[in-house]
Amino acid sequence: MIKTDILIIGAGPTGLFAVFEAGLLKLKCHILDALPQPGGQLSELYPKKPIYDIPGFPDILAGDLVDNLMEQIKQFEPGFTLGERAETIDKQEDGTFIVTSNKGKKFHAPVVAIAGGLGSFEPRKPLIEDIEFYEDKGIKYFIKNPEKYRNKRVVISGGGDSALDWSIFLSNVASEVTLIHRRNEFRGALDSVEKVQELKNSGKIKMITPGEVVGLNGAEHLESVDVDIEGAHRNIPTDYFIPLFGLTPKLGPIGDWGLEIEKNAIKVNNSLDYQTNIPGIFAIGDVNTYPGKLKLILCGFHEATLMCQAAYQIINPGKKYVMKYTTVSGVDGFDGTRKEAPKAVVKAIT
Amino acid sequence: MIKTDILIIGAGPTGLFAVFEAGLLKLKCHILDALPQPGGQLSELYPKKPIYDIPGFPDILAGDLVDNLMEQIKQFEPGFTLGERAETIDKQEDGTFIVTSNKGKKFHAPVVAIAGGLGSFEPRKPLIEDIEFYEDKGIKYFIKNPEKYRNKRVVISGGGDSALDWSIFLSNVASEVTLIHRRNEFRGALDSVEKVQELKNSGKIKMITPGEVVGLNGAEHLESVDVDIEGAHRNIPTDYFIPLFGLTPKLGPIGDWGLEIEKNAIKVNNSLDYQTNIPGIFAIGDVNTYPGKLKLILCGFHEATLMCQAAYQIINPGKKYVMKYTTVSGVDGFDGTRKEAPKAVVKAIT
Repeated sequence: MIKTDILIIGAGPTGLFAVFEAGLLKLKCHILDALPQPGGQLSELYPKKPIYDIPGFPDILAGDLVDNLMEQIKQFEPGFTLGERAETIDKQEDGTFIVTSNKGKKFHAPVVAIAGGLGSFEPRKPLIEDIEFYEDKGIKYFIKNPEKYRNKRVVISGGGDSALDWSIFLSNVASEVTLIHRRNEFRGALDSVEKVQELKNSGKIKMITPGEVVGLNGAEHLESVDVDIEGAHRNIPTDYFIPLFGLTPKLGPIGDWGLEIEKNAIKVNNSLDYQTNIPGIFAIGDVNTYPGKLKLILCGFHEATLMCQAAYQIINPGKKYVMKYTTVSGVDGFDGTRKEAPKAVVKAIT
Repeated sequence: MIKTDILIIGAGPTGLFAVFEAGLLKLKCHILDALPQPGGQLSELYPKKPIYDIPGFPDILAGDLVDNLMEQIKQFEPGFTLGERAETIDKQEDGTFIVTSNKGKKFHAPVVAIAGGLGSFEPRKPLIEDIEFYEDKGIKYFIKNPEKYRNKRVVISGGGDSALDWSIFLSNVASEVTLIHRRNEFRGALDSVEKVQELKNSGKIKMITPGEVVGLNGAEHLESVDVDIEGAHRNIPTDYFIPLFGLTPKLGPIGDWGLEIEKNAIKVNNSLDYQTNIPGIFAIGDVNTYPGKLKLILCGFHEATLMCQAAYQIINPGKKYVMKYTTVSGVDGFDGTRKEAPKAVVKAIT
């Protein structure tokens, strides 16, 4: 069981920044996210795209914003459990919560902050018979650890950036990469499309277009896929089949936690601290809703900050907190580091 | 008369960022600030100090944050009236407002956003007889245009960063710089103190410590100051006397506009749009108060953003606005520039 002060569900920019504000209040955080890396949709959907409305950045690539936030919070040593989804929550007699992930891991905290963005990203699964049977037996919707595919045969399908970029990456890892797409045209960054063309020309990537995986074979583990190529069928032996057809956000099991939901978002008290109808559970960032709500990253930062003040009161009942400015008081990391503005000297001029 | 969509009172980070969010909604802004440069206290009080709690910046110098914000908003061509204080406000029959500055300049706008920080910064004035008489006749509390002092004699008093830094700067502009401080010790950045020592050694700055200006002389304009040097008096001929004893924030005339005030801050409706008790007048950033208010820059950014949405409704009654993400839709500047993410290509791989 992982114990922490604030369990943050969601490793997007709002969840990450909450670690910083909690850290200033000496509160420890643990972050749980269904995706295999921190950053939420910024990392998963558009890491190379610029954002123009982060205050102080005339433009910043989404991936760079995530890197900056990770750097900003590292001094507060957040714990991370990635690739697991929050499944159930149980309120204890003492008012604290135990959250259990879909893999059975348990997290114990007095405060839970849901920073789940548009929801946990669920892969769009192709409609192929028996596909559930082969999940974890050769079918993968996310690539968590590319080393898993070293010297293995891999079939990737999809026509967007993920399919292109993972085909490029795995062409240096896997023994064989076959990219299957039901159209001839791919939609992605120009350099990715060109790189795949190059790897196809040099024989490092096999390509089947137009084509569609329609069958899966194998006794205990996936052994081959059946591909429909303009009406004709072909069997391709492979160790892994990775369909990359995009992600759809789903509120998921959190929707059954007894929280007030409106338009697929969690209602919060925006006139005070972004707490939900269950005391001790907060919702911040795109996952919440209130009158006038804007689903902007900069609003999530504000909501995370106010949430942390309320969390402090729950965790330290009755204790008065006097806010200090980082410029004046510096920042003391949990890792022993200290950041502070250079002090003024007092010195005679003679 | 200057006409605009949103008159922003205060050029600190919150007021500056409001220009960006207004610009996304095609609303024009004009900014009025009592200080001679944009940035509020960040520029005036601690431009060289790092801030650690701006989301996405592990640290950033206050002056750099202001520069970044100026860069971020320049495409929306805000108007600036600096060095003038908002004095009175008059609601017109059509619900719009006319604000008049202390120099009689008039601003006409349907929406007024007060982003006045801790208030307008008023100089701490030394208690010297007739000092008001010489204001604008040789006494200056701010240095707006250093060229004014070219080849003039200047007496500066004070013992902090402002006194040190302006003495250094003006030693290359004025014909004579005399720095007077009532102690031998100065309090400031190490390199500033050392630089003043050097300039004193080389005769470029005259120094009187401990000393205090106690009298002012001149018929129409300041001609000399009387200095008390440990009980002895000395008369120093000068064209200008610049006492730099720091600034105190004062809510000032805004306090008499009929706004609900609590603890020297303006009460706003934080459950919706940060509007004050007078419809059409908003208060954002450090100048406002509401339950759970934190005087943090990042909160001002959020407040500015929600305020702009409400301003849009006032200016475009009944018009529905569909929020677009800058990453998806790009940013169209009023200066004809366009920023946008590189588009995905659709291209066959053959």
